Amino acid sequence: MLSKDCLVCTGCQKEYPVERIFPRCDDCFEPLEVKISQPNKIREKVFFPDTDNILSRYASFYTLAAVNQQLSLGEGFTPLVKANLLSDLLSLDCLYLKNETVNPTWSFKDRGTFVALQHALSLGCTRIGTLSSGNMAVSVAAYGARADVKTLILVSADIPFEKIQPILIYNPILIKVKGDYGQLYYESLKIGQELGIYFLNSDVPFRVEGSKSIAFEICEQLNYEIPDYVIIPTSSGGNARGIMKGFLEFYELGLINNLPKIICVQLAGCAPLYQAWIGNQEKVSPVSNPQAIDHAIANPFPPSGNELLRKLRKYGGIVTAVSDQEALQSQLLLAKEGIFAQPAAAISIAAIQKLRKAKVLNKQSRCVAIVTGSGLKYNSILKKHKFSSFLSTMDNLKKMIVSKFEQ
Amino acid sequence: MLSKDCLVCTGCQKEYPVERIFPRCDDCFEPLEVKISQPNKIREKVFFPDTDNILSRYASFYTLAAVNQQLSLGEGFTPLVKANLLSDLLSLDCLYLKNETVNPTWSFKDRGTFVALQHALSLGCTRIGTLSSGNMAVSVAAYGARADVKTLILVSADIPFEKIQPILIYNPILIKVKGDYGQLYYESLKIGQELGIYFLNSDVPFRVEGSKSIAFEICEQLNYEIPDYVIIPTSSGGNARGIMKGFLEFYELGLINNLPKIICVQLAGCAPLYQAWIGNQEKVSPVSNPQAIDHAIANPFPPSGNELLRKLRKYGGIVTAVSDQEALQSQLLLAKEGIFAQPAAAISIAAIQKLRKAKVLNKQSRCVAIVTGSGLKYNSILKKHKFSSFLSTMDNLKKMIVSKFEQ
Repeated sequence: MLSKDCLVCTGCQKEYPVERIFPRCDDCFEPLEVKISQPNKIREKVFFPDTDNILSRYASFYTLAAVNQQLSLGEGFTPLVKANLLSDLLSLDCLYLKNETVNPTWSFKDRGTFVALQHALSLGCTRIGTLSSGNMAVSVAAYGARADVKTLILVSADIPFEKIQPILIYNPILIKVKGDYGQLYYESLKIGQELGIYFLNSDVPFRVEGSKSIAFEICEQLNYEIPDYVIIPTSSGGNARGIMKGFLEFYELGLINNLPKIICVQLAGCAPLYQAWIGNQEKVSPVSNPQAIDHAIANPFPPSGNELLRKLRKYGGIVTAVSDQEALQSQLLLAKEGIFAQPAAAISIAAIQKLRKAKVLNKQSRCVAIVTGSGLKYNSILKKHKFSSFLSTMDNLKKMIVSKFEQ
Repeated sequence: MLSKDCLVCTGCQKEYPVERIFPRCDDCFEPLEVKISQPNKIREKVFFPDTDNILSRYASFYTLAAVNQQLSLGEGFTPLVKANLLSDLLSLDCLYLKNETVNPTWSFKDRGTFVALQHALSLGCTRIGTLSSGNMAVSVAAYGARADVKTLILVSADIPFEKIQPILIYNPILIKVKGDYGQLYYESLKIGQELGIYFLNSDVPFRVEGSKSIAFEICEQLNYEIPDYVIIPTSSGGNARGIMKGFLEFYELGLINNLPKIICVQLAGCAPLYQAWIGNQEKVSPVSNPQAIDHAIANPFPPSGNELLRKLRKYGGIVTAVSDQEALQSQLLLAKEGIFAQPAAAISIAAIQKLRKAKVLNKQSRCVAIVTGSGLKYNSILKKHKFSSFLSTMDNLKKMIVSKFEQ
């Protein structure tokens, strides 16, 4: 073992220097992750949040400091909202919502983008890129603009129009690529290596490092009283890996006394992790014809899938899947708490409902659901809901209000 | 003068009890505002932010505490982002962006909604309402859902479709009203009084109280080194009033040594405040045919217009107006800093540009621009921009990337 910080393969434990850009193992091709040689105790158990960025606040848990602090847009430090109405409806004593929709580009991706960008800059890279169906593209384009580096965004050719424009506002080089999205992930890494472009893809080690701050914050926000379950909408697996890693790092230092069980949720129409889980497979297999209501959670061949299977088995996690219809229903349920999430971000709620019915979760189970991205990201899906509104003249207004309030 | 906290008319100084719901003076019909009899020093000059809601953090400056803390969605405590690229472009030494787009419903409105809702609940009201063209409707619908109170949303009949659905997700009673929007403001207050509905309209005293926390936070975030100018996109005037009130309250207690100059910005196609300002009028007159690119800043008859004119004259503020084209340009400029704002929220940048050219602002002027709402609120406007993207096959991808990076 190297005596200093390193990258370690999640599959075969081979070690690499932290300066490495290519995010996978040369031998077994499994994803790498950061290993800190000697994490120190957090400075103090101050209560969340303060003004630092995640790298400075949790410095003991990171192998790099921000090269340029001012590139922070205030990512992270998101509210943990108590969901009283929803917990009643779900027959749970205690449910919290970790609202990642209030990040600078309105999804959890900003945490990993900030951290991975700082890694890129620390290595002198002035070209960054990503491959994304939406949230990550927006996030990388935004931070790339702010850092004033050349930014390449690859998207699949069938991305909905409404998702393209909010990427282009940041003025990246955007290329729509025809072909298999799963294959494109590996192709992008190869091209990145050849052309000196740092690809901040969904599960690169330093993006995972960004996501682990979600776990740190939950610990602080709950005063270190760890929830029983943390429920995470899961696509490529990078975010779930990060959150698990965060809890583990606090646990290993004795900052928390136990680990929450992690529940990964997928949409049934594109559920490679779930299929491998129930099939007791060691590896995920690609989904050939993904049919999911929200692209944000439809990676047909999750690059961190195998690693997630390993970790979930080791620490006793759960994988489940819900339908498109349940995703839409979850969107409505979350809105009762004042949070408008995109369908992909709402499915934690459907998962809780399902596991509560199956008695996997008890009434006493303390849950935290990660709400990954804003509903405004995917407005057109709202057409699938049946909403009613009314039309009135000024003269008739009072009468109409009375009648509607009485209903 | 009453010896305890009261509402005071901004026009004639007549005083009313804080329990009053109707937000305007019975005599002169000017808007009321909250007057604290004995504000105490803030608990300590701790650096922003902590986990409290705005009412508890700044308790000495509020006449009410939250009736139900758990209704908070984490509104406020938004980042103050240093804009280095933009200040270079605008030839300014120092520009900060107060990013209100990361509020729970992605606009500044949530601050006022939270505070006014607590006022409503403290009076036992279980019916709330608002009249809005977008952001406020979303905010009130969200908090109304969370508080589980009947929530009425009035919108003008010509509101774009894409803005209706993100209101309806929260399941309010939504009525589109045909007729004059300016008139509807007063009509709604009358109906509210008759039917016992607390209307959380744009400039009701406790919404203004919410907005003042923006000023408090800026003071804390800048370590009490007050900027020279604070630039605010201005429609009804409630937010600008609140921000001015906040600085004034800190100033009167000696927490800050000077006041920033306030710059109110409107869109030229609907600029009643600006017209009254340059015409040296005492009162604003309604705009008969408003033509502005973004509804969020197109109130043709701002209910706090007269009060703003009084305050801006008393304390030496500025009113300016910019074109729709400049608003769109500002949107692109803000995106260079990684912040995607709706056009209405971006116009501070155009205003700075204009006033810098006119030498009203110097290179040394320290500016804070309030970025009021997210660009995702109004995606369809993005069609007005000319963006380019590219299409590639997997085989041709590397070649295309090389060519685009070389351009």
